[in-house]
Amino acid sequence: MSGNITPRSDDYSKWYLDVIAAADLIDASPVRGCMVIKPHGYAVWEAIKGDLDKRFKDTGHKNAYFPLFIPQSFLSREAQHVEGFAKECAVVTHHRLKATDDGVVPDPAAKLEEPLVVRPTSETIIWHMYGRWISSWRDLPLLINQWANVVRWEMRTRPFLRTAEFLWQEGHTAHATEPEAQAEARQMLQVYSDFCHETLAMPVVCGVKTATERFAGADETYTIEAMMQNGWALQAGTSHFLGQNFARAFDVTFQNEDGKLEHVWATSWGVSTRLIGGAIMTHSDDTGLVLPPKVAPIQVIVVPIWRKNKEKEDVLAFARGVLATLRAGGIRAEIDERDTLKPGAKYFEWERKGVPLRMEVGPRDVKNNATFCARRTGGKKFGMTVDDDFVANTVAQLDGIQAALLDAATARRDSSTHRLDTYDQLKALVASDACGFALVPWTDDADNEAAIKADCKATIRCYPLEGQEEAQGKACFYSGRPATHMALFARAY
Amino acid sequence: MSGNITPRSDDYSKWYLDVIAAADLIDASPVRGCMVIKPHGYAVWEAIKGDLDKRFKDTGHKNAYFPLFIPQSFLSREAQHVEGFAKECAVVTHHRLKATDDGVVPDPAAKLEEPLVVRPTSETIIWHMYGRWISSWRDLPLLINQWANVVRWEMRTRPFLRTAEFLWQEGHTAHATEPEAQAEARQMLQVYSDFCHETLAMPVVCGVKTATERFAGADETYTIEAMMQNGWALQAGTSHFLGQNFARAFDVTFQNEDGKLEHVWATSWGVSTRLIGGAIMTHSDDTGLVLPPKVAPIQVIVVPIWRKNKEKEDVLAFARGVLATLRAGGIRAEIDERDTLKPGAKYFEWERKGVPLRMEVGPRDVKNNATFCARRTGGKKFGMTVDDDFVANTVAQLDGIQAALLDAATARRDSSTHRLDTYDQLKALVASDACGFALVPWTDDADNEAAIKADCKATIRCYPLEGQEEAQGKACFYSGRPATHMALFARAY
Repeated sequence: MSGNITPRSDDYSKWYLDVIAAADLIDASPVRGCMVIKPHGYAVWEAIKGDLDKRFKDTGHKNAYFPLFIPQSFLSREAQHVEGFAKECAVVTHHRLKATDDGVVPDPAAKLEEPLVVRPTSETIIWHMYGRWISSWRDLPLLINQWANVVRWEMRTRPFLRTAEFLWQEGHTAHATEPEAQAEARQMLQVYSDFCHETLAMPVVCGVKTATERFAGADETYTIEAMMQNGWALQAGTSHFLGQNFARAFDVTFQNEDGKLEHVWATSWGVSTRLIGGAIMTHSDDTGLVLPPKVAPIQVIVVPIWRKNKEKEDVLAFARGVLATLRAGGIRAEIDERDTLKPGAKYFEWERKGVPLRMEVGPRDVKNNATFCARRTGGKKFGMTVDDDFVANTVAQLDGIQAALLDAATARRDSSTHRLDTYDQLKALVASDACGFALVPWTDDADNEAAIKADCKATIRCYPLEGQEEAQGKACFYSGRPATHMALFARAY
Repeated sequence: MSGNITPRSDDYSKWYLDVIAAADLIDASPVRGCMVIKPHGYAVWEAIKGDLDKRFKDTGHKNAYFPLFIPQSFLSREAQHVEGFAKECAVVTHHRLKATDDGVVPDPAAKLEEPLVVRPTSETIIWHMYGRWISSWRDLPLLINQWANVVRWEMRTRPFLRTAEFLWQEGHTAHATEPEAQAEARQMLQVYSDFCHETLAMPVVCGVKTATERFAGADETYTIEAMMQNGWALQAGTSHFLGQNFARAFDVTFQNEDGKLEHVWATSWGVSTRLIGGAIMTHSDDTGLVLPPKVAPIQVIVVPIWRKNKEKEDVLAFARGVLATLRAGGIRAEIDERDTLKPGAKYFEWERKGVPLRMEVGPRDVKNNATFCARRTGGKKFGMTVDDDFVANTVAQLDGIQAALLDAATARRDSSTHRLDTYDQLKALVASDACGFALVPWTDDADNEAAIKADCKATIRCYPLEGQEEAQGKACFYSGRPATHMALFARAY
């Protein structure tokens, strides 16, 4: 357990690192830019994965697994793809180590004929395979997802938000028609949005990226953008309409119902361990980690309290009964029976670990057949009788905490989203401590976008899917020309 | 869907590949030795993973995630470890690609100072981390598991059984005392054995490896050995007692309750996608894949049958009702509504995909409020009324199939396990088509072990944990010296 947590108002970046350290979520590794995800952090990822996986399967997708390595030549196939981001990769050049007096070294006799790239994303190898699997309209749609690790050699890393290796899922689908692929890309954006609202209690804005921010190789990139407590945006997931770009690069055609050969239409979509960073930054406070109950590894911590040894037996028996009841009810509950720590120290530790609900059990509670409950998010402590409704009442408490977190985050996001009229206002906004989202009438223009980014670091997070009609008849807040879009500007991670 | 399946009696190796192809489990990839696990194959892995993960958690383990890359120097730390197997590795030497006229190449300006090895197993990086996490007896035991991909550059590969990249889990535990670590290694072997019997319906022999076959860096390697239908052995999982070897190599000590510093005791244990190969080779037949219901991606396939269009509506409505009932009952069921295939072609396809139970629904079945059932493993077809007991009866059928598969595999294993007295008998056994396991009195001797392997390719799979007392007073079947063990010899994958 680490030391004090820097208040958000003092240093937001340091606060974030302190929260993660105090909650024991990760550790730095000896490999540059790679983190170790410790059990309490990994359990959050397991909860996220389980929830998303069900949503993917409910929408007809199946999981598969493709090789970690991609032949170097594949990355040259889709021109925009390699231009865009495929450069900062881990490259495997040898397949054997050789012992020397100074330890092992790559064996010069075992140099690969063609270097292999550790996947930064899998479009290229997957579309190579799709070329083998697709020949007729009967093979379509092909709806596949992969849970995997990927590597992008990032220079500046930040736990969960940007690391050299990270865990993610990548969906890759193939369709017979353009509208079907477009609908898939939009559907998966909606799945992500639903997940963020319902499970992470993290409101997001759904939108489309400008050409500048589009995925390399996509015709259209959809995004969900969340607002962190410092008013910055976090791109929490993307869904790409890839057109026929990868199908052309890997020559993937199908015979349509009329017997004619056509290139296949494609999407890809992904979210990663970055979501954990988003949840932390959305909900946590100066005491430490706050997690929405749906992804909290421990939803209820039972803390038995006794002073005299003769109390201990009764208290422990009752507390263990409470634990068993909660677990039988499907609640992720743990008990803290350590006698090396005082109750206050235990409360402190579980608060910092983000456990939503604490149930204290002392001799008086045993007598009352009740637990004394404290919410991680505050409010008056309250007793809860251990009767037939105990599990249902606990679930209701957790649901209430979940809903309150979403409400608070939505209110914060909404009150920090500003309709601005001038560029000076945007500069003032992103320079202020509160920061926030700016919604402005805008004329689509990559040069102006770049100029603004260079000048004040604000970027267009997206053109929101909803409310575009507002732009009609307005002038661009920057160029004064007739607005083509409503644009969402913000500082972003 | 691929072509004919070679009978086992003609060519067992080819049969195995044909079964996998006909069931659409994997595909070859453009990366040497790496396979693509297709949805029907990956779903088997998901079932295995879900079952094992629960067993690991029930025995107190937590999941975590460690980096894919290991600094090259780490592999030189534990001398036996690197000597044993850490040589055939994928080595990352560059972190950037550079565009040239001929496509991308590793950027010479981005050469790593220290090469990184793609993990062949994670003892070294995990024990480096444990050194940071363990300082007192209070930090022990540390019980961590990781689900991950690993890479070992194998020259000869075979789907599922031996591939360059594969998926696995690796448990890594740290303990205060030697007996505790020994008990953990044995416990996890038992977990694997229980899983193989109860879930894969694949009987295994639990035993201990000879020094020759021991994991590099272990003091003791425990193994589970299964028998394939050709009488060969498959090492299906191992659990290692690592002594203090890695703790010494990475200087991991703890302060015991008396305040003295001691090195930590360790175990590691793993099973992989190899288990899928084991299940295939244990149960499948000349028609194709047979899977135990507990890991079958589809447990029941519902096949609606209609001849006239006016029958179609009723049949489909009834069949879909059956499907919904099965699914609501927690059974993995699918329906095959394709009108491009005749019923016979559908039966053929689902048989080759290893679906344990088929339910045909024709107009007469609708009238009888029943389905007509066929087991993948044969026997008389039978009707099953769709009443209140329908789900329970289906579950009973699946349980019966599961039990029958285990019984058959156990009987086959037992009847092909021979107590032999002479080396000539062993040579004859392993040269015969039936092959099998040989149980012999043996005097532990690495030279004789190597001589036998060179002479007839039989290896000591293990010294079985049970029945060692049989060796007492017997002479070694090879050297004639007083036997130290009962040894299990076999040809092995």
